[in-house]
Amino acid sequence: MSDCIFCKIVKGEIPSAKVFENEHVVAFLDISQVTKGHTLVIPKIHKENVYELTPDIAKNLFEVVPKIANALKATYNPVGLNLLNNNGEEAGQSVFHYHMHLLPRYGEGDGFGAVWKSHQSEYKPEDYQKMASEIQQNL
Amino acid sequence: MSDCIFCKIVKGEIPSAKVFENEHVVAFLDISQVTKGHTLVIPKIHKENVYELTPDIAKNLFEVVPKIANALKATYNPVGLNLLNNNGEEAGQSVFHYHMHLLPRYGEGDGFGAVWKSHQSEYKPEDYQKMASEIQQNL
Ligand SMILES: [Zn+2]
Ligand SMILES: [Zn+2]
Ligand SMILES: [Zn+2]
Ligand SMILES: [Zn+2]
Repeated sequence: MSDCIFCKIVKGEIPSAKVFENEHVVAFLDISQVTKGHTLVIPKIHKENVYELTPDIAKNLFEVVPKIANALKATYNPVGLNLLNNNGEEAGQSVFHYHMHLLPRYGEGDGFGAVWKSHQSEYKPEDYQKMASEIQQNL
Repeated sequence: MSDCIFCKIVKGEIPSAKVFENEHVVAFLDISQVTKGHTLVIPKIHKENVYELTPDIAKNLFEVVPKIANALKATYNPVGLNLLNNNGEEAGQSVFHYHMHLLPRYGEGDGFGAVWKSHQSEYKPEDYQKMASEIQQNL
């Protein structure tokens, strides 16, 4: 897409700090550096979000993630690492070219964290089976 | 691993609400239902975290994620969807068998959210290039 900032990074039309590149994907440092070493992995082809990824694009992308995660671990010795992908503005997506965030973690207050509220008390065992059937019908 | 709850789900030794299964992966509803439709995708083989995933295990896992994401979208009509994977206790990992969370989103206060603080002001353009070189040396 001609006005997509990540397509421009893929084509080298705007600078980026590239960590890895192959035929299918590019990985580069996120300018925001929410945590040190914060890296994005993107497909070279423009796809807006996870819904648009074909199985091939998906597997070519994720195939390289463990290698990059291990390189981040070896370089910065984080205490943990989160992978995050936001789809839709209300889920935090701000660039509409699919990207997986790799966020090395250094402890609380490092820049990233998750709000996480269980709703288990609102569900009965049979509710889970009912939901699983509903979803299966759309697979 | 004999005492791993997710290995037991794979083997059918404890019940789960399965959404999808193939040769390589199982997807089932997260008991905590942080948001409605909250699903986990896991490899059948026991791997603790992203660092331990081989390229093949990684691609077999992520290949099916877009299909499941689309089924969640079709079923619950969420406004967005987050993919999250926590590696290490300090990154929020509580079950030590690799799993990718699929979290349909319904707006603020739905149960999930991200703490997100940019550190861009602390970095100069040359810092990004230096970090990218450091990481590349460990690839
Ligand atoms: Zn693009
Ligand atoms: Zn983003
Ligand atoms: Zn296991
Ligand atoms: Zn988890």
